[in-house]
Amino acid sequence: MKTTVHALLFDVFGTVVNWRGSLIASLESFGEKNGLKADWPALVDAWRAEAYGPLMDEIRERTLPWTPLDDLHRVALEELLPQYGLVGLTKAEVDWIHRLWHRLDPWPDAVPGLTRLKQGYSISALSNGNVAMLVNMARHGGLPWDMVFGADLFNHYKPDAECYLGACTLLGLEPERVMLCAAHNNDLQAASELGLRTAFIQRPLEKGPKGPIEQPADGWDLVASDLQDLADQLGMKTTTHEDEP
Amino acid sequence: MKTTVHALLFDVFGTVVNWRGSLIASLESFGEKNGLKADWPALVDAWRAEAYGPLMDEIRERTLPWTPLDDLHRVALEELLPQYGLVGLTKAEVDWIHRLWHRLDPWPDAVPGLTRLKQGYSISALSNGNVAMLVNMARHGGLPWDMVFGADLFNHYKPDAECYLGACTLLGLEPERVMLCAAHNNDLQAASELGLRTAFIQRPLEKGPKGPIEQPADGWDLVASDLQDLADQLGMKTTTHEDEP
Repeated sequence: MKTTVHALLFDVFGTVVNWRGSLIASLESFGEKNGLKADWPALVDAWRAEAYGPLMDEIRERTLPWTPLDDLHRVALEELLPQYGLVGLTKAEVDWIHRLWHRLDPWPDAVPGLTRLKQGYSISALSNGNVAMLVNMARHGGLPWDMVFGADLFNHYKPDAECYLGACTLLGLEPERVMLCAAHNNDLQAASELGLRTAFIQRPLEKGPKGPIEQPADGWDLVASDLQDLADQLGMKTTTHEDEP
Repeated sequence: MKTTVHALLFDVFGTVVNWRGSLIASLESFGEKNGLKADWPALVDAWRAEAYGPLMDEIRERTLPWTPLDDLHRVALEELLPQYGLVGLTKAEVDWIHRLWHRLDPWPDAVPGLTRLKQGYSISALSNGNVAMLVNMARHGGLPWDMVFGADLFNHYKPDAECYLGACTLLGLEPERVMLCAAHNNDLQAASELGLRTAFIQRPLEKGPKGPIEQPADGWDLVASDLQDLADQLGMKTTTHEDEP
């Protein structure tokens, strides 16, 4: 494996950062501070579903013009707030909630795992987030990306082929030299069909402690329990204190 | 200054890496090892001039279709080698020379300076190099970029406006929130006309110890003697051992 793969691409939401847990924790704390009550987990789930479902599908089908994820989040948020009883928020408060997607926390294994993997491979985000969101998120969480492939570099959302092949072209690598690492089978399926290598990263808590767990389909090159395990499987040495970034 | 600028963009060749000195040193060592003699500094100067002059101009004028810098370097190198008496090189040797642009060394102040600047600003490459070249170069030299804006993201070469404005758009920032840091007046002039802030970085050795020195024109927001001085002027604290990445 290590002799042929030169670059790792990472899905970000769910695979590298705990989007759901981060949003819920921030909103609960916001609610307590401001005396607001709402079903925060339900709001977060609806927010993600709205942006990633109908809105993104319309863009994939080109019935909506290209719109970056930040803007889809804004449209969805403004629709959802009154549905969850949140009325009369100031613009600054809505902006703050909107921008929570820029400050998502990494899973605990993500930074040490990526740091080890970076010793042997270039490591890049390949996400449906836009560049500004992903760069801010990396700075917030200390994600040591070599490159950030936001969907706004391609004006396409995964699983459109333009994203995977666009990243390979920009890296100057044939798809078989590139491995997508993701917690979602549909993402890996698209990459695999285009000739990329695949690593399924298990994230049983992505949808919450009681949420559904996505199990790996058959046929991926690797299945890893987290990014430290991926580093183990790819033969990266263990990070000692002296190696830490 | 610090209250309004959120992101720093860096020209790379000359400003962050010592392209000329790195290429000459590598080629001299290659020549010694292989018993080849040539006027290496003249070859390097001609190589850069050919790629950045006539070839890039044709792309700016759209008389040549978009071609990334790696490919311009290849065309120029294959023209120049026989002119400098270098015939009969193997493909692997020509490949190795060609790829030297992926392994240029940073100026000594670049990594510590960028590391300090990253504490207060997002720091991105904005270069006429292509993404693969810039990512490999960053990995080679330890450049801690938040984002790499290669010219192949825009299919335009600086000083075309598409590069500067494209980077601002992808960062989600108005141009006045973004500062270009460069050792070349023409680069800063283009950025300034588009509303970006400007920092001239003095690199008296870019063209060699006896080469011409580019002096800063009037009108830049800052003039810095190197990237450590830029960090000082932007109020970044001095990196101590505990802070080191």
